[in-house]
Amino acid sequence: MTPDPHSVGLVTPQTALFDTPLTLASGATLEHYQLVFETYGELNADASNAILICHALSGHHHVAGRHHPDDKAAGWWDNMIGPGKPIDTSRFFVVGLNNLGGCHGSTGPSSINPATGQPWGASFPVVTVPDWVHAQARLADRLGIERWAAVIGGSLGGMQALQWTLTYPDRVAHALVIASAPKLTAQNIAFNDVARQAILTDPDFHGGDYYAHGTVPRRGLRLARMLGHITYLSDDGMGAKFGRMLKSGEYRYGYDVEFEIESYLRYQGDKFSDYFDANTYLLMTKALDYFDPAQAFAGNLAAALGQAKAQFLVASFTTDWRFSPARSKEIVKALIDAKRRVSYAEIESTHGHDAFLMTDAPYVRLMRAYLNNVAKEVGA
Amino acid sequence: MTPDPHSVGLVTPQTALFDTPLTLASGATLEHYQLVFETYGELNADASNAILICHALSGHHHVAGRHHPDDKAAGWWDNMIGPGKPIDTSRFFVVGLNNLGGCHGSTGPSSINPATGQPWGASFPVVTVPDWVHAQARLADRLGIERWAAVIGGSLGGMQALQWTLTYPDRVAHALVIASAPKLTAQNIAFNDVARQAILTDPDFHGGDYYAHGTVPRRGLRLARMLGHITYLSDDGMGAKFGRMLKSGEYRYGYDVEFEIESYLRYQGDKFSDYFDANTYLLMTKALDYFDPAQAFAGNLAAALGQAKAQFLVASFTTDWRFSPARSKEIVKALIDAKRRVSYAEIESTHGHDAFLMTDAPYVRLMRAYLNNVAKEVGA
Repeated sequence: MTPDPHSVGLVTPQTALFDTPLTLASGATLEHYQLVFETYGELNADASNAILICHALSGHHHVAGRHHPDDKAAGWWDNMIGPGKPIDTSRFFVVGLNNLGGCHGSTGPSSINPATGQPWGASFPVVTVPDWVHAQARLADRLGIERWAAVIGGSLGGMQALQWTLTYPDRVAHALVIASAPKLTAQNIAFNDVARQAILTDPDFHGGDYYAHGTVPRRGLRLARMLGHITYLSDDGMGAKFGRMLKSGEYRYGYDVEFEIESYLRYQGDKFSDYFDANTYLLMTKALDYFDPAQAFAGNLAAALGQAKAQFLVASFTTDWRFSPARSKEIVKALIDAKRRVSYAEIESTHGHDAFLMTDAPYVRLMRAYLNNVAKEVGA
Repeated sequence: MTPDPHSVGLVTPQTALFDTPLTLASGATLEHYQLVFETYGELNADASNAILICHALSGHHHVAGRHHPDDKAAGWWDNMIGPGKPIDTSRFFVVGLNNLGGCHGSTGPSSINPATGQPWGASFPVVTVPDWVHAQARLADRLGIERWAAVIGGSLGGMQALQWTLTYPDRVAHALVIASAPKLTAQNIAFNDVARQAILTDPDFHGGDYYAHGTVPRRGLRLARMLGHITYLSDDGMGAKFGRMLKSGEYRYGYDVEFEIESYLRYQGDKFSDYFDANTYLLMTKALDYFDPAQAFAGNLAAALGQAKAQFLVASFTTDWRFSPARSKEIVKALIDAKRRVSYAEIESTHGHDAFLMTDAPYVRLMRAYLNNVAKEVGA
């Protein structure tokens, strides 16, 4: 097979160990932890061409390329990252990591707690978006990156990009905040709580210590993912793809799969419950719930975002109802009120919230154009 | 306590037994069944002033008044039904019933199957909206009602009102179809399927025969209801009522209730799982999924509704995203295309789908005005 000139090709995850204690927003302290990460492209001489990719709820460090030549799937944002792609690895040094609390190699609930010799399980502390940004900054230090050319993320990843500009205003030149929100609404929290309750009440959850019981709360995780999927897709997109299409062509009047949409959702739920750690899922949803940078400013988002020095690209998608364009506009308005530099794009797409992972042409053009300018700024 | 002159007062449910077999859409036949119902007001001499109230997913026959003087809550639509209320029992004879498959006294999965002496459980047949209408027609026969002055319902109840005009075009003068839809979308079905999977995968479900095991799939039913509630409320309404309000006033960084919205949803879920039968819940969601009167007309809704002879009032609520105004407009457009008589109202409300149960002033005015005309038509 001819190698794809636009792929980063074969990549190998790396692990960084940290033994300086990290105190979290909750007050808990992690004495030691590790972060697993991947890099693509070359860091230039003055370390000015680095881009950090922040992942969303179920993402991880494997953002682009393949681990093995026969891997069926590439990294989760491979369509956006590679030589000649919008996040162009022939110009940028791109870093993806698995966040603290994850289940793909970074320290998380399924890791061994050195104090007990057992998996952390339910005792792993809740981790917030600012905590992640602190941990990511230590990884940046380790890599010799004083300042990111850009921090980029969609959804929960966008919240991290935004938080970077507040926690470390001098360490990020551009923040790309895509399909995100300045905080969850009651409805957003409600969906998260149904997902959490599905996991927490699964008899196989065992209070979070299912590892010791040799079980996995698969039923709960499956339901959580099925529900999540509904919020990732648009009503129209789901209608166009599945509509009322029947699995067997006629009503069977029973509780087995009747409609194609049921088959799709159950398949997605089953697949997810095979590999994702339930405690990590809980933790990720809590990070979403707690994110609210305006909170420390009496709810004044403009005052909060006044701390930022970065330039912003905020992007939303027309059919995204999880984090609708109105939510992105809240960020944009606050940035304008705070006299920050911001570009905003509301992109036509049928893909709902998932659009941030897709390749709708206007989205790809936008990313390419914006990052082309970022590259020029740093001489890359 | 002074009696409320606008209440129907104390009411007593009645039971009608049927022993003419009823063949269902699925092909299954119920040899015997009973329907529990209540009536308010007096049937006039020519039996022309009767109104049928069709209930939605979790509703029942107890629509107005109280069973005991010390009942805290009145029937589920007491705010709309009574002397001098929009559905005026000093002019109309109002009938409410628990649908076939219900869990409030009509024959359903928790009833004893005379063939086995055990509860029907999972073997109770799937029942559809047309099946309900057939059963309701037999109740009408029993009560001596040849033609309803109006059939009224919200949500799934609106689907029954619509179906009445198609199955028995000569037996309904007015159909009031409120906050409803001509069929479910893929997204609607998807939400139903997550709710069903929560119940079906609860270890206490035992394939639907939990009665024999002395268990109730409470976890599943609770999740189903929590999820349902999210779709009944509007994003804005939920935001106005709960926002990001915290239970304890500060973040506690754990998995207990943190936000008020979580507390509310869990409470609603717990309460529901205490009294509602899980098999009935499954059955009701399937009746929703299967409803599609256009299906027999190659998807042509206007052709389907061309069977109707009734006059229609179709009403929707601005913040209803479960069955949005666009869904009601599909019905209205098809009725117009079929040259039927239809009035349409899109009512401003913050109450989302639940608005059909509420008393937003424009809604109450609309119902009062429309039903006043219906009463005049029948000399009531």
